[in-house]
Amino acid sequence: MPRYALLIEYDGAPFAGWQAQADQPSAQGAIEAALARLDKGFAAGARIAAAGRTDAGVHATGQVAHADLARDWDPFRLSEALNWHLKPAPVAILSAARVKDDFHARFSAVERRYLFRLVARRAPVTHDRGAVWQVLNTLDIDAMRAGAAHLIGLHDFTTFRSTMCQSKSPVKTLDEIRIEEIEIPQGREYRFHLRARSFLHNQVRSIVGTLERVGAGSWAPDRVAEALAARDRAACGPVCPPQGLYLTGVGYPLDPFAGRSG
Amino acid sequence: MPRYALLIEYDGAPFAGWQAQADQPSAQGAIEAALARLDKGFAAGARIAAAGRTDAGVHATGQVAHADLARDWDPFRLSEALNWHLKPAPVAILSAARVKDDFHARFSAVERRYLFRLVARRAPVTHDRGAVWQVLNTLDIDAMRAGAAHLIGLHDFTTFRSTMCQSKSPVKTLDEIRIEEIEIPQGREYRFHLRARSFLHNQVRSIVGTLERVGAGSWAPDRVAEALAARDRAACGPVCPPQGLYLTGVGYPLDPFAGRSG
Repeated sequence: MPRYALLIEYDGAPFAGWQAQADQPSAQGAIEAALARLDKGFAAGARIAAAGRTDAGVHATGQVAHADLARDWDPFRLSEALNWHLKPAPVAILSAARVKDDFHARFSAVERRYLFRLVARRAPVTHDRGAVWQVLNTLDIDAMRAGAAHLIGLHDFTTFRSTMCQSKSPVKTLDEIRIEEIEIPQGREYRFHLRARSFLHNQVRSIVGTLERVGAGSWAPDRVAEALAARDRAACGPVCPPQGLYLTGVGYPLDPFAGRSG
Repeated sequence: MPRYALLIEYDGAPFAGWQAQADQPSAQGAIEAALARLDKGFAAGARIAAAGRTDAGVHATGQVAHADLARDWDPFRLSEALNWHLKPAPVAILSAARVKDDFHARFSAVERRYLFRLVARRAPVTHDRGAVWQVLNTLDIDAMRAGAAHLIGLHDFTTFRSTMCQSKSPVKTLDEIRIEEIEIPQGREYRFHLRARSFLHNQVRSIVGTLERVGAGSWAPDRVAEALAARDRAACGPVCPPQGLYLTGVGYPLDPFAGRSG
């Protein structure tokens, strides 16, 4: 059966997360329902596998999944047909590509990229409601960068993962935390860009929630190093809410979507 | 009675426009209802006046209105109290300022700034649904800039105003049309920034709708000059939809909000 990789964008607000669950709307479920309109295997219950299983309320601009279809599809026609059947769910197939049988959206991935959007201002957000985490006071970006620097590299991230995390090991290499500061009307937006081969459950939200405490002045930057060294979930700062988090991209040894525009 | 200027942001999606109308939700109506919770004059039916009366579905990040209140308010407390009473409407007071009695949000304004967001890609937008106008194919930005250049300066804009427009004269000076091109996942966003002392009804949407035809190759850039010279509404390109339009700012000889952050 020919295998296809799908580049996927979704607004996480209406979903109980990426993963299909009985009686709850999910991004995976929406895409599998669209595939079931096109393909007998999916009509009979075939499943797709994704690079990152995002939590309820978490968004994606660059999720990747793969699907095995019963017949050959022109990739552009496949993405168009899926987008047609996905309406009106806020899920879109940005690109589809034929891939080799040994491509696996999750196991072939060598990099995940996440964005966390944090808005600091007094007045409630209007346009970005459900798309950012809001705090009331501006943050010290230099302090946050100093705190973040302690987390880069190979570490035991037990402090920064959910107690529900199913990863075998808490040891991961965090390749980058880049923090941007953007002027918005009467406030500031902080964009945290994180990059790693893979992340633990709630790792990004645990890190950003902790760095917010540093930016607010409640934590000294060095306390991040102490929290990391403690290897104790209780040493983590507050986990920030899901609606500011975006899975923005997944890296593979060979980009399945390179050079494609539809 | 002390007069206050309010800097206002709103998501236009749920509103029949800025202007209060019987039995229809409006941004003005939401703010007046919040004022009525604080002020006996507004409880008795006083009204606010705004710099720009945006249409149904049009957004604002920098609308300005003024209100006369019965008592003296600390401006920061006034904005906080209004935001409290505005919840959960997607309307926020970004700043409040005490102004002189001769300040008028509409008549004192010497500049209005609008943004129009146009997304070009095949896959439907998800996060920006209701926040942009989407077309399917990328546009020629150089052609759009060449077309836009014909509109800068003092002209009779009869072609580019609604037949419902109530302005006494169709002669206006358009100070700037700046077009940005931004990469988005598998597509392009075009941001049109327009600036003038004042605009005619539907002028921005008429101009952007016409420039989109130029960008798509259906119109030569010089046809914009011919359409303008025709002074005929029928010579205009299609008027684009409201959801991509934002009133981003209003200029006054003395900025009432200068140096304020709340």
